[in-house]
Amino acid sequence: MRAAFFNGPRDIALGTRPDPSIQLPTDAVVRVVLACVCGSDLWFFRGETPKPPGTIGHEFIGVVEDIGTEVTGLAKGDLVIAPFVFGDGSCPHCLAGWPTNCTSGGSFGNNDIDGGQGEAVRVPFASSTLVPVPGTGHSEETLRSLTTLCDVMCTGHHAAKSAGVESGSVVAVVGDGAVGLSGVLASARLGASRIIVLSRTPERQNIARQFGATDVLAERGDEAIARIMELTNGTGVDAALECVGTGESMDTAFGVARPGALVGMVGAPHGVTVPIRTVMIRNVGLRGGVCPARRYIPELMTDVLEDRINPGIVFDFATNLEGIVDAYEAMDTRRATKSLLRVSSL
Amino acid sequence: MRAAFFNGPRDIALGTRPDPSIQLPTDAVVRVVLACVCGSDLWFFRGETPKPPGTIGHEFIGVVEDIGTEVTGLAKGDLVIAPFVFGDGSCPHCLAGWPTNCTSGGSFGNNDIDGGQGEAVRVPFASSTLVPVPGTGHSEETLRSLTTLCDVMCTGHHAAKSAGVESGSVVAVVGDGAVGLSGVLASARLGASRIIVLSRTPERQNIARQFGATDVLAERGDEAIARIMELTNGTGVDAALECVGTGESMDTAFGVARPGALVGMVGAPHGVTVPIRTVMIRNVGLRGGVCPARRYIPELMTDVLEDRINPGIVFDFATNLEGIVDAYEAMDTRRATKSLLRVSSL
Repeated sequence: MRAAFFNGPRDIALGTRPDPSIQLPTDAVVRVVLACVCGSDLWFFRGETPKPPGTIGHEFIGVVEDIGTEVTGLAKGDLVIAPFVFGDGSCPHCLAGWPTNCTSGGSFGNNDIDGGQGEAVRVPFASSTLVPVPGTGHSEETLRSLTTLCDVMCTGHHAAKSAGVESGSVVAVVGDGAVGLSGVLASARLGASRIIVLSRTPERQNIARQFGATDVLAERGDEAIARIMELTNGTGVDAALECVGTGESMDTAFGVARPGALVGMVGAPHGVTVPIRTVMIRNVGLRGGVCPARRYIPELMTDVLEDRINPGIVFDFATNLEGIVDAYEAMDTRRATKSLLRVSSL
Repeated sequence: MRAAFFNGPRDIALGTRPDPSIQLPTDAVVRVVLACVCGSDLWFFRGETPKPPGTIGHEFIGVVEDIGTEVTGLAKGDLVIAPFVFGDGSCPHCLAGWPTNCTSGGSFGNNDIDGGQGEAVRVPFASSTLVPVPGTGHSEETLRSLTTLCDVMCTGHHAAKSAGVESGSVVAVVGDGAVGLSGVLASARLGASRIIVLSRTPERQNIARQFGATDVLAERGDEAIARIMELTNGTGVDAALECVGTGESMDTAFGVARPGALVGMVGAPHGVTVPIRTVMIRNVGLRGGVCPARRYIPELMTDVLEDRINPGIVFDFATNLEGIVDAYEAMDTRRATKSLLRVSSL
C-alpha cells in the first residue's frame, strides 16, 4: 500500500509499505477514508520535537476490511472512528477512563505502527479502540466532522472539561488553531455563557464566531490579560483553555483565571513554566494533557450525527494522499487551519 | 495590651500595643483565648521569607468583647473561631467561596493588623469573618481542636478537597507536619480507603495513625515513589496531597499520582517546578493554594463538637504568651509538631 513517511525535518514523502494484515486475534485492518494533519505533527515536521523516520498520522476514519477472531462489536464493512491511541480497555488506566495511558497501548504513526496518513492501518485492540459509526450514506460534511473526533474536537472538549466548563461559565480560549477553535465549540456545547477567544487571523476569527465565541480579541500576552480582566469587571474567567503550549500562552491563561478557576491545558508544552505563585495565591489549578479521545467519541459522535455540532469546518484545506506535502506546508505556513486528506471513497 | 512581635529573623519578643477598639462599624474586638504558631510562621522566623517587623500570628479563637453597630450574627461574649484572613463576604471572590482573595480583605498579623499571638484582635468585617461556636463549657480538648480550624485543619482539608479525595480514594500524603497530619485526618473523614503518609518521626507517625493513616513510610524522594507504586500494584494513587512546598515534595506527589489524578497543593512553594511533562503525559493535575478556611469552618466545627474528629492532638507543645519564643523554637527544632499558646481563660 501507499503511505506517507517522515524522513526528517521538512522531509515528508509518499512511499510504500506492506499491506497491513491481522497479526493478533484482537486486531482489525481498516481502509482509510479520511485522514488529516495534526498541529502536533508540525512539531516533528519543523524539527522542534525529535521523531525517528517512519510512519505518520494519527487521525483517520475508515472502513473495517478484516477483523481478528477475538474482535467483538465490529464487522467488516463498518465505518469506524479511530482515536489517536489504541488501548486494551482492560488495564487499570483504561478502566479508569485514561486509555492514553494504557499499559499495553500505543499510538498510530509511531514506532512502526501504521499511520493514518496512508491507505490502511492495522489497529491493535480493535474492540476497545475503534468506535463504529451507525447509519449509512453520511455526507462529506458529516464525514469531515467525524474525522475531527479522532483527536482535535475531542482535544478541544478535553480542554473544556479539564477547565471545568459548565453551564453559565465565562471562558477564555488561548489559541485559535484547530484545537483552540474546537475548545470554543466544546465550551459552547457545554453551555458557557461567554466565550472569549484570542485570534487575529480573519478566517479563524470567523470559524470561532460560528463555533460560539462571543468575544474575539486580537491582543496577546499582557494586553490580552488586561482586556479580558476589563471585560470581566476585574474578576477574571471561570475557566481558561490553554491550547497552544508556549510559555506566553500558559501565562496568559493563568493571568486571566479568577481565584479557584482551572486552566485546561492541551497544548503540548514547549518551554512552559507553571506560575506556581498564582496557583498558591489565587488557587488557580491546572488540569489536562493528552486527551482520552476514546472516552469522548461516543457522545460527540451523537451530536455530530444529530447535527448539533459541525466541527468539520476547521478543515479549510483538502487534498489527497498525493498532496501530503502540500497538506503539511499549508498548515506550516498558516495558509490552512487544518488539512484534510481524502484517501479513499466511502 | 501585650502582644508578640517579629523584630527580624530569629527575633520574636513580647511587647505592648494599644488595646484594640472598634474603628469601623463592621469591626469586632476579640479577646484571644487560644492561639498557635503556624508552620508558615517559621518561614519569616528563619529569614526564608521577608516580612517587615510588626504583629504576628494568624490563628486564634477567643471571646467577642465589643462589636460595631453594623455587625450581625455575633454578640458580646460569643466564643468565636477566626479564619486566618478576613473578608467582606460580598465581593465576587468571597461570593464564589474564595474569601482569601477578597478584594477588601487582609490577614491577621500582617500590615499592622493585630496578630493572633497577642491578647486581643480587632477583626474587620466581623460578620463575614468570625464563626461563632455554639454551646458553652467546652473542654480544653475541644478548644484545642477548634483552634486548628483557624488554619491547619482547614488547610489539610483543602489539600484533600483540592486533590479530589472522596469515598474509596487511595491517597498519598507528602509531609508529616501539622498540615500533612491534618490532611490525613481530612482524607479519612472524606472516606479514603487507604492513606499512605511519608513520615519518619515516631511522634508524628503516631498522630498519623490516630488520624487514620493505613501505611506510614519512612522513605523519601524516589524511594518513596517506588514504594508507593509497589503498594498500589504499579498504578499510583487517586489523590496526592503536597503539604511541604519543596521541589522534592512536589516531585514525589506528581511521581505517585496515577493518570488523571490530582495533586492537592497547600505547602507554600519554595523552589518548586511543576513537572509539566507529567501533567501532559499522565493528565496529573494540580489544585490548591491558600486555604479558604472560612468556607470550611462550619462543617468541620460540627464534626469537632460532635466528637467525630479530634484534630487538636497535633498540639504537642503548649505554653502561654510569655513562652512565645519557646513556642517558635520548639517548632523550629522539630521538638514540637505544633505549638499552642494559652493566652487567656475562657
